[in-house]
Amino acid sequence: MKDKLQSIIDQNRKWTNCGQVASYIPELAKADPNILGIAINDINDKAVQAGDYNYYFTIQSIVKVIILICLLIDGGEDKIFDKVGMEPSSEPFNSIPKLERTESGKPLNPFINAGAIACTDAVLGKNCKEKYERIVAMLKKLSNNQNLKINDAVYKSEKLTGQTNRAIAHYLKGAGLIDNSVEDVLDVYFKLCSVEMVVKDIAKIASVIANGGIAPWSQEKIIPTNANKIIKAIMTTCGLYDSSGCFAVRVGMPSKSGVGGGIVSVAPNKMGIAVVGPSLDHHGNSIAGVKVLEELSKSERLSIFL
Amino acid sequence: MKDKLQSIIDQNRKWTNCGQVASYIPELAKADPNILGIAINDINDKAVQAGDYNYYFTIQSIVKVIILICLLIDGGEDKIFDKVGMEPSSEPFNSIPKLERTESGKPLNPFINAGAIACTDAVLGKNCKEKYERIVAMLKKLSNNQNLKINDAVYKSEKLTGQTNRAIAHYLKGAGLIDNSVEDVLDVYFKLCSVEMVVKDIAKIASVIANGGIAPWSQEKIIPTNANKIIKAIMTTCGLYDSSGCFAVRVGMPSKSGVGGGIVSVAPNKMGIAVVGPSLDHHGNSIAGVKVLEELSKSERLSIFL
Amino acid sequence: MKDKLQSIIDQNRKWTNCGQVASYIPELAKADPNILGIAINDINDKAVQAGDYNYYFTIQSIVKVIILICLLIDGGEDKIFDKVGMEPSSEPFNSIPKLERTESGKPLNPFINAGAIACTDAVLGKNCKEKYERIVAMLKKLSNNQNLKINDAVYKSEKLTGQTNRAIAHYLKGAGLIDNSVEDVLDVYFKLCSVEMVVKDIAKIASVIANGGIAPWSQEKIIPTNANKIIKAIMTTCGLYDSSGCFAVRVGMPSKSGVGGGIVSVAPNKMGIAVVGPSLDHHGNSIAGVKVLEELSKSERLSIFL
Amino acid sequence: MKDKLQSIIDQNRKWTNCGQVASYIPELAKADPNILGIAINDINDKAVQAGDYNYYFTIQSIVKVIILICLLIDGGEDKIFDKVGMEPSSEPFNSIPKLERTESGKPLNPFINAGAIACTDAVLGKNCKEKYERIVAMLKKLSNNQNLKINDAVYKSEKLTGQTNRAIAHYLKGAGLIDNSVEDVLDVYFKLCSVEMVVKDIAKIASVIANGGIAPWSQEKIIPTNANKIIKAIMTTCGLYDSSGCFAVRVGMPSKSGVGGGIVSVAPNKMGIAVVGPSLDHHGNSIAGVKVLEELSKSERLSIFL
Repeated sequence: MKDKLQSIIDQNRKWTNCGQVASYIPELAKADPNILGIAINDINDKAVQAGDYNYYFTIQSIVKVIILICLLIDGGEDKIFDKVGMEPSSEPFNSIPKLERTESGKPLNPFINAGAIACTDAVLGKNCKEKYERIVAMLKKLSNNQNLKINDAVYKSEKLTGQTNRAIAHYLKGAGLIDNSVEDVLDVYFKLCSVEMVVKDIAKIASVIANGGIAPWSQEKIIPTNANKIIKAIMTTCGLYDSSGCFAVRVGMPSKSGVGGGIVSVAPNKMGIAVVGPSLDHHGNSIAGVKVLEELSKSERLSIFL
Repeated sequence: MKDKLQSIIDQNRKWTNCGQVASYIPELAKADPNILGIAINDINDKAVQAGDYNYYFTIQSIVKVIILICLLIDGGEDKIFDKVGMEPSSEPFNSIPKLERTESGKPLNPFINAGAIACTDAVLGKNCKEKYERIVAMLKKLSNNQNLKINDAVYKSEKLTGQTNRAIAHYLKGAGLIDNSVEDVLDVYFKLCSVEMVVKDIAKIASVIANGGIAPWSQEKIIPTNANKIIKAIMTTCGLYDSSGCFAVRVGMPSKSGVGGGIVSVAPNKMGIAVVGPSLDHHGNSIAGVKVLEELSKSERLSIFL
Repeated sequence: MKDKLQSIIDQNRKWTNCGQVASYIPELAKADPNILGIAINDINDKAVQAGDYNYYFTIQSIVKVIILICLLIDGGEDKIFDKVGMEPSSEPFNSIPKLERTESGKPLNPFINAGAIACTDAVLGKNCKEKYERIVAMLKKLSNNQNLKINDAVYKSEKLTGQTNRAIAHYLKGAGLIDNSVEDVLDVYFKLCSVEMVVKDIAKIASVIANGGIAPWSQEKIIPTNANKIIKAIMTTCGLYDSSGCFAVRVGMPSKSGVGGGIVSVAPNKMGIAVVGPSLDHHGNSIAGVKVLEELSKSERLSIFL
Repeated sequence: MKDKLQSIIDQNRKWTNCGQVASYIPELAKADPNILGIAINDINDKAVQAGDYNYYFTIQSIVKVIILICLLIDGGEDKIFDKVGMEPSSEPFNSIPKLERTESGKPLNPFINAGAIACTDAVLGKNCKEKYERIVAMLKKLSNNQNLKINDAVYKSEKLTGQTNRAIAHYLKGAGLIDNSVEDVLDVYFKLCSVEMVVKDIAKIASVIANGGIAPWSQEKIIPTNANKIIKAIMTTCGLYDSSGCFAVRVGMPSKSGVGGGIVSVAPNKMGIAVVGPSLDHHGNSIAGVKVLEELSKSERLSIFL
């Protein structure tokens, strides 16, 4: 498998030239577009990696999966869906000003920024500090790594320049969809998006989901079965912005991308996968990362639709 | 299983009071809102049914699955995606005037009317008569039923009053997405939507998809593996109009609904399922039919996300 | 005045290089982008012209003004506003698939294609032939020219390739906003858009509106006072597609543009003006024509907002 | 004239039952829906009033006219149109989350909230305090009333609950369209919207615009001619939210409404007019106020399109 991964990385590295790194905040624009790395963690906790697997990158929207897991554990299906819808969006990822609201005024799904911010506010905790700690604890547990770090420059850059998210949060506050103060909720959200990981960490997270919510390394049931089912469903329909449908057809693994270039993918009952490639396509997904996942899915027959 | 189905039907029949039958064409408004029926055909070709399983209804948008199958067989993945996108739509099912086009001008996916009309035009055949016969032959083969009938009143009513589809087809013609004459393509499309079936027929179709493209009754491989995979992916992300995401979470079976009240659902490697209930929710899906599928999915653990 | 016009034409001819001739139908693409001409007809019927005033061009959307006049004469304010709204559109002129409907389902205003087609259908006449004759008779009367000609190549090109208008008309038919057959109404509309004129003809029309509805050459009251008022109001708010607001600020004369490059402008109680310049800006308005009108308006203080 | 006004008020008071007072902030919901008042100030400074002319109401969006006047005086046409577009919006007044941006990212016009907030930020002044004082000074000068008061309860209510405007301002900040701090600019804007006046004050303002920018009481030229022209043009195309087009047809006076129930109207070279009626139609305009203006315009022939 190690050789196969290496070969897939080698053959797809050319794609890194075709995209562009995210630049909506100055710090993200510093990412190296040539990076391409992959890690797999299977349900027996066997790990393989290839390419730039030691590259640290901010997880960005991938953290939305963890926020959703926390909220599903805290309150179950119903609590979440008081806050957000579950429908995919056909709007580009950066058309955020539109808020993409459902008829009921709620954000369209938990994976658009408006939805993730509303979910962050609803995670258990008497205040935002506790909510943050709750989500970070889950991130550590799912990645089996107690040494997470925040990319402070990215965090400060988001905080300083993340005006669109600030606009969204104020709107949500006005609509009664956020209880805590806008700046407190945003601070949690910006910090979470700025967590840095390597692909191995994220592959670990994916392997828990792939293994029915049970950590392959400890056999601890971390995610309840129903929550694990919901996570995979929403990752399938909403995980790759407005190319989720195309990704479902071509790759067919529940996944979530982030503008840091990472993608987390779940091959149920088989393995967790993570790729990183900061050069993005115009949908906001890692351009080479998607290619790598497509090739891997085809060669290993990982699509859930097979 | 027979008893279980009967019990699910009985318990959910109350929902038929909460919706409304389709009324955009006069003939459809004559449907009986109290009907609720289900049929299952498993991958060993064992059939069970309950409720109003003898009720004939027009399959309407369910035929889009068959059109897509024909096109995938004829031309493969690439041919289709020259014509349409693959992204779910967050627009209501009846916002058709918007055409829901992708950036490239193509319809958003093969399951919105614009997409299905473009696909109909692209099915193999020297003329529209041959295309129609090709799709009908596939419908007969997949349902293992040579005695299909057209509801002539519905067909004429669609043809006479289906101005929105006519508008769409003229637009597609102008955009170069239809080769044949607008009226010829529409005639095929209207006729196909007006095919009448009972749930057993549709459950047969679903069982072929559930069985990897192989007919459970003859072991004939009707749908190539890759086409079968694509069908399930698109049914999952786009099958229930703008509640496809919610349906993926709550039911989790690749499905397609029609405004005649039918829904076709696939439990991969297990069974094909069809329900009918002409009373629709505001998304255009059978209101009791969705409830029946949700309960069946939960009790039999049929979600592909489990 | 003749010298002033000549000088304005000379100084603005450079702008003809900055735009593009309409190309949505093949015939229009043959227009000469270098043309720039102007004609004035004042309320004493004194005529002046400069530049390419002998250039024949199809009047295209300028005919919408005549259709609206006929309808206002036939049925008054209320009859029209049963058919269309009166609100400006902020959509680009070629986003026609959206139909730009009001809440009530009616086209947003009589100057978008959907509105003009609905109005054409509502003009007095037992059939479309009579409606056509009624509008053409008005066009002849207002331009004081009995020798109108149709550009047959443009007419046939529109009829053959005007699929977006055909889509719109079918949609209107379905919505009950057209009584006659789609093809009959479109035939009238396409023929009217294909009428060819020189700027002098159009300046005559404008001079009637400028003179309170009274023909300067015969003192005949052609347009009733209230209709004349409504025409000017709608020309002001909706006459230049989605740059009507900017044009009101910079030019300030009730006007209507057409994709053939013509613009008809009204300086109330002073004069009627027409320009032609087939090179269009991205709003669909004559790029040099707008500049000429702006300069003339400023130098002669013609804005109604002064 | 006094009798005529009284009679128009009496005959249209019934309409106050058909609308609803604004309720997006709690304080506005306390307005008295039965109020209906009018004041006229002609260009000879002759004043007449009728109905509830002593009723104090917050001027709300009417202040956008004053902000625009200041900005036009400060920087001329070009400075403003660096900040905002000039096109009418076909979106409802409360669809503010969409921001209604032009292609260039700028707000569509200076009379939607996003546009007015951007303009507020651009008014001359080293800081927001000076900007506020500059606009208030203009308001006092134009209304010839040095005793303006702020409705403190409305101001605090806006400040506390005006989350949509806060969202908009943060978005504008991110887009580089606001230089000052979001809260400082909003504070100015909220305070300005909370200025309380009676109709006489507003009729004075309108009379200056009607009189070519010259105060009828002092003959001081307050608004430069070109600025006065632009103001009237934008009031005509954008002054009554998404019923500006209908109002232009039916009333035909450059006007601006506010959700406090006020409308300022200009009959050029004749008079300034102000009405108040807090009961609003679904466009956000005073329902009886519009009727009163329509009747007055028709009986006195005040339309600029006549």
